[in-house]
Amino acid sequence: MTQFQGSHILSVNQLDLEAVEKVFSVATRMTPYALRQKRTTVLDGAVLGNLFFEPSTRTRVSFASAFNLLGGRVNETVGMASSSLSKGESLYDTARVLSSYSDVIAMRHPDSFSVSEFAKGSRVPVINGGDGSNEHPTQALLDLFTIQKELAAGGRDISGMNIAMVGDLKFGRTVHSLSRLLCMYKDVSFTLVSPKELAMPDSVINDIANAGHKITITDQLEGNLDRADILYLTRIQEERFPSQEEANKYRGKFRLNQSIYTQHCKSNTVIMHPLPRDSREQANELDNDLNDHPNLAIFRQADNGLLIRMALFALTLGVDSQLEQYERPVNWYSRKADV
Amino acid sequence: MTQFQGSHILSVNQLDLEAVEKVFSVATRMTPYALRQKRTTVLDGAVLGNLFFEPSTRTRVSFASAFNLLGGRVNETVGMASSSLSKGESLYDTARVLSSYSDVIAMRHPDSFSVSEFAKGSRVPVINGGDGSNEHPTQALLDLFTIQKELAAGGRDISGMNIAMVGDLKFGRTVHSLSRLLCMYKDVSFTLVSPKELAMPDSVINDIANAGHKITITDQLEGNLDRADILYLTRIQEERFPSQEEANKYRGKFRLNQSIYTQHCKSNTVIMHPLPRDSREQANELDNDLNDHPNLAIFRQADNGLLIRMALFALTLGVDSQLEQYERPVNWYSRKADV
Amino acid sequence: MTQFQGSHILSVNQLDLEAVEKVFSVATRMTPYALRQKRTTVLDGAVLGNLFFEPSTRTRVSFASAFNLLGGRVNETVGMASSSLSKGESLYDTARVLSSYSDVIAMRHPDSFSVSEFAKGSRVPVINGGDGSNEHPTQALLDLFTIQKELAAGGRDISGMNIAMVGDLKFGRTVHSLSRLLCMYKDVSFTLVSPKELAMPDSVINDIANAGHKITITDQLEGNLDRADILYLTRIQEERFPSQEEANKYRGKFRLNQSIYTQHCKSNTVIMHPLPRDSREQANELDNDLNDHPNLAIFRQADNGLLIRMALFALTLGVDSQLEQYERPVNWYSRKADV
Repeated sequence: MTQFQGSHILSVNQLDLEAVEKVFSVATRMTPYALRQKRTTVLDGAVLGNLFFEPSTRTRVSFASAFNLLGGRVNETVGMASSSLSKGESLYDTARVLSSYSDVIAMRHPDSFSVSEFAKGSRVPVINGGDGSNEHPTQALLDLFTIQKELAAGGRDISGMNIAMVGDLKFGRTVHSLSRLLCMYKDVSFTLVSPKELAMPDSVINDIANAGHKITITDQLEGNLDRADILYLTRIQEERFPSQEEANKYRGKFRLNQSIYTQHCKSNTVIMHPLPRDSREQANELDNDLNDHPNLAIFRQADNGLLIRMALFALTLGVDSQLEQYERPVNWYSRKADV
Repeated sequence: MTQFQGSHILSVNQLDLEAVEKVFSVATRMTPYALRQKRTTVLDGAVLGNLFFEPSTRTRVSFASAFNLLGGRVNETVGMASSSLSKGESLYDTARVLSSYSDVIAMRHPDSFSVSEFAKGSRVPVINGGDGSNEHPTQALLDLFTIQKELAAGGRDISGMNIAMVGDLKFGRTVHSLSRLLCMYKDVSFTLVSPKELAMPDSVINDIANAGHKITITDQLEGNLDRADILYLTRIQEERFPSQEEANKYRGKFRLNQSIYTQHCKSNTVIMHPLPRDSREQANELDNDLNDHPNLAIFRQADNGLLIRMALFALTLGVDSQLEQYERPVNWYSRKADV
Repeated sequence: MTQFQGSHILSVNQLDLEAVEKVFSVATRMTPYALRQKRTTVLDGAVLGNLFFEPSTRTRVSFASAFNLLGGRVNETVGMASSSLSKGESLYDTARVLSSYSDVIAMRHPDSFSVSEFAKGSRVPVINGGDGSNEHPTQALLDLFTIQKELAAGGRDISGMNIAMVGDLKFGRTVHSLSRLLCMYKDVSFTLVSPKELAMPDSVINDIANAGHKITITDQLEGNLDRADILYLTRIQEERFPSQEEANKYRGKFRLNQSIYTQHCKSNTVIMHPLPRDSREQANELDNDLNDHPNLAIFRQADNGLLIRMALFALTLGVDSQLEQYERPVNWYSRKADV
């Protein structure tokens, strides 16, 4: 069992099943606070250092908002790349200095393992918000949390489920981390759908196989989705292909829209995507004509990210048992649960 | 009468006279809080998403500060244009995701009607902070509020007043919206002073005429200000002219300084400008030698912007009747009302 | 004695010894709040305008965090250079408008004396966070505070000490301001070690001499440190030299590492550096092999910056006597005092 209080959250590999379920249990308790049905000030006075060495509005705002929803304040450090911090200063020095300015740090950096290196010099817990092609553990946790919630709503379970992962499985950091988390469960069937050039790396496939899961590998979307409980789509960037001919060969072959969904999926297949999706004509991996479909979970997925980040802040700062004690009324107009 | 609670504020066209007067009444009640004579924590715990897709420090800080002055927190999202949000993601998706991160959103975007499009996907009220050349409703409201306050201080009224609008009336978004708001009043005389190439658009002139107001159109500043109660100056950017010869022809013809003011205006003509004004020699549409003139309302105008934005937050979040209930002492050195 | 409440902090020259000691006394009282052993909400509801016209993450975050630690909120205005504020608007106008949006302003600007110019139009106290090559008073104060604390821990005093300043003494703003502050004390011995091309300016040397202090000037590091109580290193940027030959001549001559320290310094010589230090091979003015040395004060120096800035906010806003009155419990996991 992971000890959360005072710990860094750097990788999904540091979490066992018990730890993951602890995170999900606290995340679930965060729901009424995130929906503004209730309010807690448990982190009133605490400061988050939101250290983004590369821009990522969505992730940055999600961390900030999660901290705000627990009553804390956020110290933003966007645009660090252009400041003197990048001019030869070591991550160790940066960490020694900046970690005295906050109670917890969320950090994104373009270089693999940079967040771990930073954490060595930090006096406060550091949560990895994505370090290059290496890890993005909060994304992996929110994906798994979404799968669990969506399946549970229909009486299904992660163990025994069928998941189809579609798109760029080579460079898509999220599908790697999610696959590793799924290795903690039993009897999952993976259907990996990608162009051959963008196939899931062998190391991940080995992990899946070693966990005893079934794997189907294909480059055809249609005809391979009929048993999927979860359909996890990712974006394919054309520049990832070795040539434009290769790109053209696959163009439009990994798109999902209402017609394909109805024809090829079960009626209870849950549609996920890490977002952002590209809504431009040439990309469009997930069509807007599914926007009102009840099985489209992509916005609930983003909402779950808020809950997961709230849970990680509460756990690393050791306040998860005090949420109710610091409740205050919500005296203003509350957001709609959904549009 | 507009229902404010839970509503978007996208355009001045959605406001009738009763709604405008409601905003002004709440804005007036905000004065002691803005001056730090009193403090309210009515929005303690609430989060503003300050979404600026193009830089505008003044407007952005004004929204943020208005929210802070009501006790709320601000989630800044500067520099969105450079993030993944701009890479093909639809405004609808952005809105669905980001609107779960805050209780109300202030948004500026370079594209006309983008804020309305965003609002369709938002779960929380959205306040338009300027959408390209289309609208900037909080600026229009603060201009009108300033006119009413400045005239009232001298026993005058909007109905029956004479307003001279000077400068770039073609591209100046603020004079268009202000003119439309003035159509709700009776018997206003407009003097429109601009180079012919930068004249007020016909659509606005028609609205003014249809409201029964008088209009004088001229390209001469001097000799046309002698009856103005309000002198509303705007900046002329030389690049707006079709040729440098045209620009040269008008250069310096729309400047106001102490000597011109004394010679051509009534002693109680109020000077307004949406700011920023260009203080460089070649531009200088409003000279610094008027800085200490009691009729120079430009800084009071900016201060009124804070009051208007506080009022709109209080109204859309439904807390305008609770300001006093959440009062707390101001225990630190308070700002001066003016320098 | 300087009157702090409501005053601007623009230059070290405005402070006499009594004022400096007042700042240090309040800074010392800030220690338990900065370490999260205690928490105060004395500035709850107050707003800091953090106006940075050029990027400086470290200083900006330090100001923001200092304000947060006193319970206040921060309105960030990064990236002002790219906004309309820079398009011809005078600092006076900017100040008139923005100073109504906050209770106190911390400001950095690339132009000398710009902060003083801004302060003339401000309705709230302005603290200079660095104005070009002119002044950076909070850095000078934190340097002096560090010297006093480090020496006092070993029973030494500023009066009577020996300080060696090493590196770029010509362009290094921090050593100029620190030297001026040291002129308020008695009997300090200065050893100024720099390439001839980067020597301390005559005006500063004259001030030091007029204060009755001893001065040794040299371009050799080794052999000149044996009596130093304080060793203050600064970074030399090679582009400061008139030619690459000059740079090569001095390359590596002003580096400190464990071997040089052990060989040439007293066992109680305190090592300081304003940070950031360049950890790249070709620069490396202060080697990482001293990172665990107890006399390396560089991170304590940065921590002291937080205390000094907290003290200045408390003093200018007149709440330094109310810290204890507004104490609240720290109910979350507290940072480590050091790693």
